Amino acid sequence: MFKINENYQKLPGSYLFSTIAKKVAAFTQANPDKDIIRLGIGDVTQPLAPAVIEAMHKAVDEMGSAETFHGYAPDLGYEFLRNAIVEHDYTSRGCDIAPDEIFVSDGAKSDSANIQEIFGADNKIAVCDPVYPVYVDSNVMSGRTGVYNAETETWSDVIYMPCTMENGFVPEFPKETPDMIYLCLPNNPTGTTITKAKLQEWVDYANRVGAVIIYDGAYEAYISEEDVAHSIYECEGAKTCAIELKSFSKNAGFTGVRLGYTVVPKELKCQDVSLHGMWARRHGTKFNGAPYIVQRAGEATYSKEGRAQLQEQVAYYMKNAAVIKTGLKDAGYTVFGGVNAPYIWLKTPDNMTSWEFFDYLLERANVVGTPGSGFGPSGEGYFRLTAFGSSENTLAAIERVKKL
Amino acid sequence: MFKINENYQKLPGSYLFSTIAKKVAAFTQANPDKDIIRLGIGDVTQPLAPAVIEAMHKAVDEMGSAETFHGYAPDLGYEFLRNAIVEHDYTSRGCDIAPDEIFVSDGAKSDSANIQEIFGADNKIAVCDPVYPVYVDSNVMSGRTGVYNAETETWSDVIYMPCTMENGFVPEFPKETPDMIYLCLPNNPTGTTITKAKLQEWVDYANRVGAVIIYDGAYEAYISEEDVAHSIYECEGAKTCAIELKSFSKNAGFTGVRLGYTVVPKELKCQDVSLHGMWARRHGTKFNGAPYIVQRAGEATYSKEGRAQLQEQVAYYMKNAAVIKTGLKDAGYTVFGGVNAPYIWLKTPDNMTSWEFFDYLLERANVVGTPGSGFGPSGEGYFRLTAFGSSENTLAAIERVKKL
Repeated sequence: MFKINENYQKLPGSYLFSTIAKKVAAFTQANPDKDIIRLGIGDVTQPLAPAVIEAMHKAVDEMGSAETFHGYAPDLGYEFLRNAIVEHDYTSRGCDIAPDEIFVSDGAKSDSANIQEIFGADNKIAVCDPVYPVYVDSNVMSGRTGVYNAETETWSDVIYMPCTMENGFVPEFPKETPDMIYLCLPNNPTGTTITKAKLQEWVDYANRVGAVIIYDGAYEAYISEEDVAHSIYECEGAKTCAIELKSFSKNAGFTGVRLGYTVVPKELKCQDVSLHGMWARRHGTKFNGAPYIVQRAGEATYSKEGRAQLQEQVAYYMKNAAVIKTGLKDAGYTVFGGVNAPYIWLKTPDNMTSWEFFDYLLERANVVGTPGSGFGPSGEGYFRLTAFGSSENTLAAIERVKKL
Repeated sequence: MFKINENYQKLPGSYLFSTIAKKVAAFTQANPDKDIIRLGIGDVTQPLAPAVIEAMHKAVDEMGSAETFHGYAPDLGYEFLRNAIVEHDYTSRGCDIAPDEIFVSDGAKSDSANIQEIFGADNKIAVCDPVYPVYVDSNVMSGRTGVYNAETETWSDVIYMPCTMENGFVPEFPKETPDMIYLCLPNNPTGTTITKAKLQEWVDYANRVGAVIIYDGAYEAYISEEDVAHSIYECEGAKTCAIELKSFSKNAGFTGVRLGYTVVPKELKCQDVSLHGMWARRHGTKFNGAPYIVQRAGEATYSKEGRAQLQEQVAYYMKNAAVIKTGLKDAGYTVFGGVNAPYIWLKTPDNMTSWEFFDYLLERANVVGTPGSGFGPSGEGYFRLTAFGSSENTLAAIERVKKL
C-alpha cells in the first residue's frame, strides 16, 4: 500500500490566506448588503502599466505566426529578460551578477517554497518572527522543522528571531547557529526593514558560521530610504553566502501575471558543490519556464516608459500607505512600516488578539486585514494592512476605522 | 555549515534534453553552413490557434484596466477553465469528475515532477522503460530510488517495466509490488499505447495491491483508435487509485504558454487521508496559479472555434507522423508509434547504440532526434523522432534519411 508524506499531517490548519478567504466568504454570505474593503491579502489592484500591456499584445501576435512563434523557453529564461534584470537590478547598483546567475521563474512564492529542496533534511532553519508563512510551511513539508507545539505555535527545530516593537523589528543573531537563514527585507508583514550596514553584519555572520541566507527582496521597489540596500549583493561577501529571490508581483503588479527570478551566484558553494548547478538541475528537471508572453512583459518593466509608469504605480500605493499610517496614528493606534514597504503593521488595541481584531474590523468596519499571529507567534497582538487597495477604498477604509 | 540535498549528487549527467541541446550547439558552431532539422525535443512549431490568440488579446486588455484587472488567481484555477475542462474532457466521456477535483497548473512537467512530494520517502515506484525521464529524476531528487548502477543505468529501488518490440510495448505487472506506478499513455517516447481493456486491468491491479497510478495523459489528443481510453477515469474504479496529469502543450501548442492540470479525485485516499486535500495544500503553499491570460487561453481551446482549429493542428502533426513512419519503413527501418501519438520510435540499424545513431543522423543528415537510451535502459537501440516539425521540414528530413 502506498504511503503519504506524513509531514503534511503536521501542518496546523490551512494556509493563512485560505482561512481569511473562507472567513470573508462566510461574512459576505451572511451580510450580502455590506460593502467590504479588502486590505488583507497583499494583492494589487492597479492595472498593468501601458508599456507592459503593449509588450504583451506584441508577444501574443508573435505567438500567432509560425515565423515568430515561441515554444519551450530556455531553461534559465530568455536572455532578453535576464540581460535587462542584470543591467537594471544589479549592474546599476554596483553588483557584479552575471545573466547566467539569474533563474527566471513563475514567481517568488514558488521559488521561496522550492529553494529548500536543494538543501539537506538536517539543516536548521532560522526565520524572522513574524514572517511570510511559506518559508516555514515549505520546510515543514520536507520534514525539516521537528515537532509542532500548538500552545506556543512554534516548531522544535526552527530558530525564531523575534522582530517586535521592543527590538525595533531588527532580528538579532540567534543563540543557536542556523544553517539556513530566511530574511525578507523589507519585511512582510511588518513593513519594516534594516539598514545596509546591519545587513552587512548578517552577511558577515553567515559567511563566518557557514550559513546560507535566503534573501527575499520582493518589496525592494518600495524602499525610500537612502541607507537601505536594494539587493543583498550590495553587501561585500554576499555572493558566497546568499541566494536572492525577486518578484514582479509588487513592483509591477504581476500577481496575476506570474513572474519572478532567483539569483544563485556561482561562488556559492557547499564544499566543492555549486548550488548554482543544483538549482539549474532542479529548474531544468521540475520546471519548464515562464511563458514567453510573460517574459516579454517582464522585459517591458525595464524599458524607459515602463520604469516611469511603474514608479508612478509605486508612488500611488505608497500614498495609500501614508494615508493608512497617518489615519491610524490620528485614531490613536501604534503603527509601524509603510516607509520602505507597502505594509502597515499596527498594535491591536485593548490587548485584543490578532484574530479578535480581524473579526472586530470585519464586523464593525467591514474592512479585511491580516492577523499578525498568522505570520508567527511574535505577530500575536499585531495586525497587517496593505497599501495595495485603490486610493478611494483606502481612504474609505481608514475613515471607517477612525469612526470605531 | 549548511548541507546540500545529497540526492542531487546521485543524478547521472544532465537532463537529457539539455545534453542534446549542447551537442547540437557544438555541431552548429563547427558547421555553421549546415541546415539542421530538429525532430528531437518534443517542441511544437505551429502557431497558436486564432481562437486562442483572440482570447489572449482580450485578456491582456482586461489586465490593462482597473475594472477588469485580475490579481492572484484562485488556488485551484479559475472556475471558467475548470468548468470547461470538466465538460469537455470528462463529462463528455462519461467520467464523473467535479470542477474542484481539477488543479490548474503551469504544465504537466511541473506537476509530474512535484506530485511525488505528497508521498512518503519509503514508496517503491514503478516506471515503464523507456519513459519520460522526469518521473525517475524527480524521485531521485527525493531519495526514493536507491543506488544507481552506472553499468545497467538502473536504480536499485526503481521497478522497471520494459516496453519493447518483444512485448509489443505493453507493460506487464511487475514481480515486485510497487506503491506508485507511473503510466504515460500514449507513451512518450515510444508513441505506443494500450487498449482501454488493458488499462482497466492496470486499474484493477492498482486497487488490488494498494498502489497509486500517476497517469500522464499529455498526448491524449493524438489518440485515433476507438478502443483506447482518453482518460483513466473511463476505467471503473480509477477514482480510488489514480491521479491524472494533463497538458495543453501538445494538444494546443502551449509549450511556450505553460498550462496543464492535474486531477486528484476526492475518493483517492491513504487510509483516511485524502490526497486531494494534500495536493490542495501543496498547491496553495508552493504555487501561485497560472497567469490569468493563460487560463483564458486555455478556456479558448474548448470553444467551438478553438476545438475545430486544434483538430486541424493535431491532424497536421499526425500527417507528419505518417510521413515519417512511411518514409522510414520504405527506407527499411523498423518503426513503431505514430498512430495514437506524435512520436515515431525506430529500431536503430546495424546494432548502433542510440547515441551512435544520434551522432550519425546529426552528422550525416543534419537531423536531430532523441536517443532512446535517454529514456531508460530498454530504450537502448531505439530512437525517437517527433511529428512536431513543419511539414516541409519533416518531408525534407525524411528525404535526407532515405538517402543515407
